[in-house]
Amino acid sequence: MASGLGEASDSAACPFCAGNENMTPPEVLVLRDEGDPGRLSSWTARVVSNKYPALVPEVSGPEITDENYTARHGFGAHEVIVESPNHLVDITLLGEGQFEAILRAYRERMLALRADERFRHILIYKNQGIEAGATIEHIHSQLIALPIIPKNVLEELAGAKDYYQSKGRCVFCDLARKESQQRERVVTENADFIAVCPFASRFPYETWILAKRHAPFFERNTPQDESALAALLRETLIRINRCLSHPAFNYIIHSNPIDEKGSDYYHWHMEIIPKLIRVGGFEWGSGSYINPVTPEHSAQSLRQALP
Amino acid sequence: MASGLGEASDSAACPFCAGNENMTPPEVLVLRDEGDPGRLSSWTARVVSNKYPALVPEVSGPEITDENYTARHGFGAHEVIVESPNHLVDITLLGEGQFEAILRAYRERMLALRADERFRHILIYKNQGIEAGATIEHIHSQLIALPIIPKNVLEELAGAKDYYQSKGRCVFCDLARKESQQRERVVTENADFIAVCPFASRFPYETWILAKRHAPFFERNTPQDESALAALLRETLIRINRCLSHPAFNYIIHSNPIDEKGSDYYHWHMEIIPKLIRVGGFEWGSGSYINPVTPEHSAQSLRQALP
Repeated sequence: MASGLGEASDSAACPFCAGNENMTPPEVLVLRDEGDPGRLSSWTARVVSNKYPALVPEVSGPEITDENYTARHGFGAHEVIVESPNHLVDITLLGEGQFEAILRAYRERMLALRADERFRHILIYKNQGIEAGATIEHIHSQLIALPIIPKNVLEELAGAKDYYQSKGRCVFCDLARKESQQRERVVTENADFIAVCPFASRFPYETWILAKRHAPFFERNTPQDESALAALLRETLIRINRCLSHPAFNYIIHSNPIDEKGSDYYHWHMEIIPKLIRVGGFEWGSGSYINPVTPEHSAQSLRQALP
Repeated sequence: MASGLGEASDSAACPFCAGNENMTPPEVLVLRDEGDPGRLSSWTARVVSNKYPALVPEVSGPEITDENYTARHGFGAHEVIVESPNHLVDITLLGEGQFEAILRAYRERMLALRADERFRHILIYKNQGIEAGATIEHIHSQLIALPIIPKNVLEELAGAKDYYQSKGRCVFCDLARKESQQRERVVTENADFIAVCPFASRFPYETWILAKRHAPFFERNTPQDESALAALLRETLIRINRCLSHPAFNYIIHSNPIDEKGSDYYHWHMEIIPKLIRVGGFEWGSGSYINPVTPEHSAQSLRQALP
């Protein structure tokens, strides 16, 4: 990984920079590049508990209810995946090998947390840039393990199940196949993965990445999958940067809830949302989204963003 | 209404300022202050079609479908309620009488659009400030009439119906009564309306305004209701301004979908969302919201924001 290039200036005070490891809670995972003993840092990616967690594993207890309201304690896990030892603020400055390390860190933490039977769902997401909700600029992503299956995931599961019951096929498999044939909304693809601006998407340049073969669980990716995904994710984010002048963005990994076996109808995928427009009263009131850029136009622009 | 105070400087180019009426599409409603013939402007509030509409009444035609996707034309109405003839950027600079005129404009347009049988739901909302999605600073709100009942409204209706079937009472009536008794989450109230920071609300300082008596339809407000609501809404927004240093905000009117008679279980209300935090990957992925300020604390701060 290049050092110096793209680094911001305030690494001395940054809790995610190499050398400042004592500024974070203890590590739950550290990845090291065994093939590079001469490197400056002793780690390539590290995962720590969030210092300001939304949910914590230590609390428990009964629900609190009165006649009208029910509350429960904020049980869960909230971790931070530090994506580089260097003070970079844009993930695309990393090489493919470092993207692979990040995807491996996601997988290893998901597998470790699955072992805790209290968890029912694990959500991994990245906020890059202030507009996307980041409060620390050093590149990182986050993991939240929940004792419930959240609303948006339940809705997506129900929609996928309906489709499966009506057609006998996984809707995400169909989407990947149809888009790959039709080309109009494809950003880029390789043998294993495809990046598309989905039909009727909510946001300008919203891009999803899907495996071409049926795959309910992100955490069952093989190292070969991770290598192919790392290349496609990095290329897609570079296209977004070039096309849209380095926008803030979120990405979210949607994976099957934790259970013994994966479903035939649900298929993990990654949703990338560049933060280009503000969500206003119409969207909050309706749950519908006014998207001023068609996905067909978004995909075409992203296809043209690299030679 | 005071002129000069709080006015921004660029009214010459503003399509919503008095004198620039020819910069907007034709009026669908104009309100005038008949008691003040000496006033500078000939109108107090005006409603026009949105010059850049998300939906338009002129299109129609069949759905467009293929094997996987269904689209329909963007049929609907999209109107702008200009809230003052003067170039104000903060609605709280208006007096109660002008708030009443705005609420009356909402009601009159909802009643007029109900007559078109193609519409099933009408949503009124306000985006004040760039962070809230406003693209023109001159104070205004918007109305969108839809040929469908949107997702968020369907979910709210379903939840309210469940509650009614289980308890035999309207959940919003119960909420207003319970909060008024308990006081902890009340911002302010008068004889007819109450402003509360709801239990388990999504956002810091999120505030809802509800009628104390059961009222499914916003557009059935009487002039007396509008007078009481104008006073409470203005006071609530002033409290938010003082407490939070004039944040950008959205408000959204949730009203019963258009049908012959109102339901026993649904009750119109207004949701006010100050834009204080960014929505990030966790919220987009889960549909749950991490709110760093409890509604109890929010309500206490808003109660203390005025002597």
